Amino acid sequence: MTTPFPKTPEFTGTLYKPARFEGEVYDLEIEGKMPDEIDGTFFQVAPDPQYPPMLGKDMFFNGDGIISAFTFKNGHVDFKRRYVMTERLKAQRAARASLHGVYRNQYTNDPSVQDLNNSTANTNVIVHAGKLLALKEDSAPYALDPVTLETIGLWDFEGQLTSATFTAHPKIDPVSGDLLCFGYEAKGDATPDIVYYEIDALGRKKRETWIVAPYAAMIHDFAVTENYVIFPLMPLTVDLERLKNGGRHFQWQPGLDQLFGVLRRDGDGRDVRWFTAPNGFQGHTLNAFDDGGRIYIDMPITSGNIFYFFPQSDGTVPPPETLSSNMMRLTIDMNARGNGLEMTPLTSFACEFPRSDDRYMGRQYSHGFVIAMDPTKPFDEERIGPRPFQFFNQLAHLDVTTGKAKTWFADAQSCFQEPIFVPKHADAPEGDGYVIGLCNRLADCATDLLVFDAQHINEGPIATIKLPVRLRMSLHGNWVAGSKLAAR
Amino acid sequence: MTTPFPKTPEFTGTLYKPARFEGEVYDLEIEGKMPDEIDGTFFQVAPDPQYPPMLGKDMFFNGDGIISAFTFKNGHVDFKRRYVMTERLKAQRAARASLHGVYRNQYTNDPSVQDLNNSTANTNVIVHAGKLLALKEDSAPYALDPVTLETIGLWDFEGQLTSATFTAHPKIDPVSGDLLCFGYEAKGDATPDIVYYEIDALGRKKRETWIVAPYAAMIHDFAVTENYVIFPLMPLTVDLERLKNGGRHFQWQPGLDQLFGVLRRDGDGRDVRWFTAPNGFQGHTLNAFDDGGRIYIDMPITSGNIFYFFPQSDGTVPPPETLSSNMMRLTIDMNARGNGLEMTPLTSFACEFPRSDDRYMGRQYSHGFVIAMDPTKPFDEERIGPRPFQFFNQLAHLDVTTGKAKTWFADAQSCFQEPIFVPKHADAPEGDGYVIGLCNRLADCATDLLVFDAQHINEGPIATIKLPVRLRMSLHGNWVAGSKLAAR
Repeated sequence: MTTPFPKTPEFTGTLYKPARFEGEVYDLEIEGKMPDEIDGTFFQVAPDPQYPPMLGKDMFFNGDGIISAFTFKNGHVDFKRRYVMTERLKAQRAARASLHGVYRNQYTNDPSVQDLNNSTANTNVIVHAGKLLALKEDSAPYALDPVTLETIGLWDFEGQLTSATFTAHPKIDPVSGDLLCFGYEAKGDATPDIVYYEIDALGRKKRETWIVAPYAAMIHDFAVTENYVIFPLMPLTVDLERLKNGGRHFQWQPGLDQLFGVLRRDGDGRDVRWFTAPNGFQGHTLNAFDDGGRIYIDMPITSGNIFYFFPQSDGTVPPPETLSSNMMRLTIDMNARGNGLEMTPLTSFACEFPRSDDRYMGRQYSHGFVIAMDPTKPFDEERIGPRPFQFFNQLAHLDVTTGKAKTWFADAQSCFQEPIFVPKHADAPEGDGYVIGLCNRLADCATDLLVFDAQHINEGPIATIKLPVRLRMSLHGNWVAGSKLAAR
Repeated sequence: MTTPFPKTPEFTGTLYKPARFEGEVYDLEIEGKMPDEIDGTFFQVAPDPQYPPMLGKDMFFNGDGIISAFTFKNGHVDFKRRYVMTERLKAQRAARASLHGVYRNQYTNDPSVQDLNNSTANTNVIVHAGKLLALKEDSAPYALDPVTLETIGLWDFEGQLTSATFTAHPKIDPVSGDLLCFGYEAKGDATPDIVYYEIDALGRKKRETWIVAPYAAMIHDFAVTENYVIFPLMPLTVDLERLKNGGRHFQWQPGLDQLFGVLRRDGDGRDVRWFTAPNGFQGHTLNAFDDGGRIYIDMPITSGNIFYFFPQSDGTVPPPETLSSNMMRLTIDMNARGNGLEMTPLTSFACEFPRSDDRYMGRQYSHGFVIAMDPTKPFDEERIGPRPFQFFNQLAHLDVTTGKAKTWFADAQSCFQEPIFVPKHADAPEGDGYVIGLCNRLADCATDLLVFDAQHINEGPIATIKLPVRLRMSLHGNWVAGSKLAAR
């Protein structure tokens, strides 16, 4: 590969420089005290471009998906990492060059790959019905073997998937084990159609509901409660003509409200209602629940566009320092007339990549775990250079019931990636367990996997798992108990 | 693995911190202009301990062998890296702990592994008769598949190996393709027996000659000319009682001469003669040749013990700054009465890991390539810390005919590893080709593979192959042409 990667912030520095290797480390070095009881695998995925962009520049979200698996057993941790062998990646390797243009714009790809699936499979990984699914919201999932990480191929749930797309943020119902999931632009690029599915733990589709959004726009994450499904329609719209003209998939619309489509899970979709909030950027769902009449949704919301790579029509984005951001509680009163939506901040700081105790997904809950940005904390610009995009210098535990937060700041060079929560045992109380997440040590070109006592995050990690290799900034992942992997 | 590696120089810093990962990088990023004509694989091996030492401390040379393979084709380079799955490593992985004690002292190992082969297979790799042989001088080789790097197992050349040991520095006769090789301590620990073998390109043993040295001592490398074999017996002696008492395998003897055992290749060994030079440390062979009556051997020789981990009987080693070191030409006059051995320096600087154009092995030649230490050049102690052991800050091309040297110093943070020479094509004149070697960028925690025009080393690399992972300091390796690998 004789075309070097661009020297832009998306491809340089120890957080964003492509890592690109696949392989294993047997028995990672661990400092501290690793609890023997942690038994299972932490799967997570990063965009990591196999080749420099065909167009000379690109955004972080367009890298090829590479999966890391950390398997915990008897106090030991083994590491494995493999690319998802997407159609896109296989074509690139055969050509030994990138063949792909603008993010999620097939019209800008090399003619040789215009009929191939365009998914990078780089956003999330989840185990369902014995398969590891690598997810990107513009496509069906890719299925992989969860033990070997070998790619099986594109996965349409044995013909049951009727949509062109599938979310990167499905939920698993903690009682039934059902996969609760959706697709947007579900009939293809720029279509306003949305589908909601429930697929049982053995892979059989139980429910399929179609609705139409007011317009085609991004629905990155969603929320599910015991009775409702909520689709946050973001002010990032899609236009087919723009795509055909080689433009960006998404464009920020400062004049549009945030929309929240709410429908009953047991209905046919005709009951969908769209609630509104002032223009803003809806982040990932921490959790949501309902009490029959009221729906509560916790998610970080920012006052404007944080995706600098999807500017508004005049090409601009607001300076980041002009934006405010908090974890918000949205309350939707389904019995109110008109727009019964209220928002109350749950934090006084900016945070993202929120996770809860998955056993309480969709149920009333207390504990949330996020990574946070505190711009007042020291930053080692001398050794690292300018502060990178998405530099999360804190880990935080939120008690959404009391509003209290415990935070941990490592040092002036450490950037957290999305953590996951692992209960101490299957019957442990909510939030009684471990928070596990990657932490990049930017000045040391190193990456550690940190294990915290979830109730004492502010005391720092109880175990530091040392990787001998640097990992690139990643996106999302999930924990799978060893018993579940063994039973598949 | 909850026992951390020791915080000693052998296990810390970006040159010596264990790397431990196995895997692949498809299509490494290349800066500069990679010549399309370079076609083949550069195999090399490093000691890289799977586990922290059982005894709490250890030396660099005792790490488990891990092989890196860089495959060049059409201007692209792919990377693969795998541990040699030695009996020793398999036992450690099963126990998830080190089971091995003092370097090359089986008596200090855990009882569970005392009957297992003790080789780390960490010193050199060479392709012979279709197999990749991973070599450690205390054992038979391990054979691996040269394409997959999968370990086949201990290799006794289909029962033809009669010795307990096999050198890490065999030579390949450039005319016949025969493997010219030997073993010392060839009847087991502390035996003074030496065996010399010639094994043809198809793996059939053609010659086997046994001699007995004046005493058991290290013979790390050797030399072969068209008519002679030369064994440099180093003043690093072996004593069985010391081994049984848990001591070091080797002990420096400041009162012993350097010895050089010379025998005819076509004889039965009874003609062996031992030539002497004043006490000193014989390094690796650059090359050797004879004109019938005179033998010429080029190797770096240091005035005293450079292996701080093998001290003399009082436990001391000379301070490194008191030692002098040069590439030396040894001339042995086989017709002289008495000790017809003379030494003349070929360089004014210290160097090691010498390599020549392998097509001239044992023949009169001109071109040598070494890595060198220039203590007067700047060193970035502020970012790196203290200068590590074996910090080679220069690459050099020696013309042994004219005595001229061309050197290249990269910068104050770069440390070279052993280079290899690749001819431009099979019929290119001697030294007309490329020098390829790893270079650790200590302050950047990075490793590059550099490609130089062999005749213009002083102009710097023509191509820089960027690894996204840090490699540990390695030992030796070899180039294998693509045509040879394809034909196996």
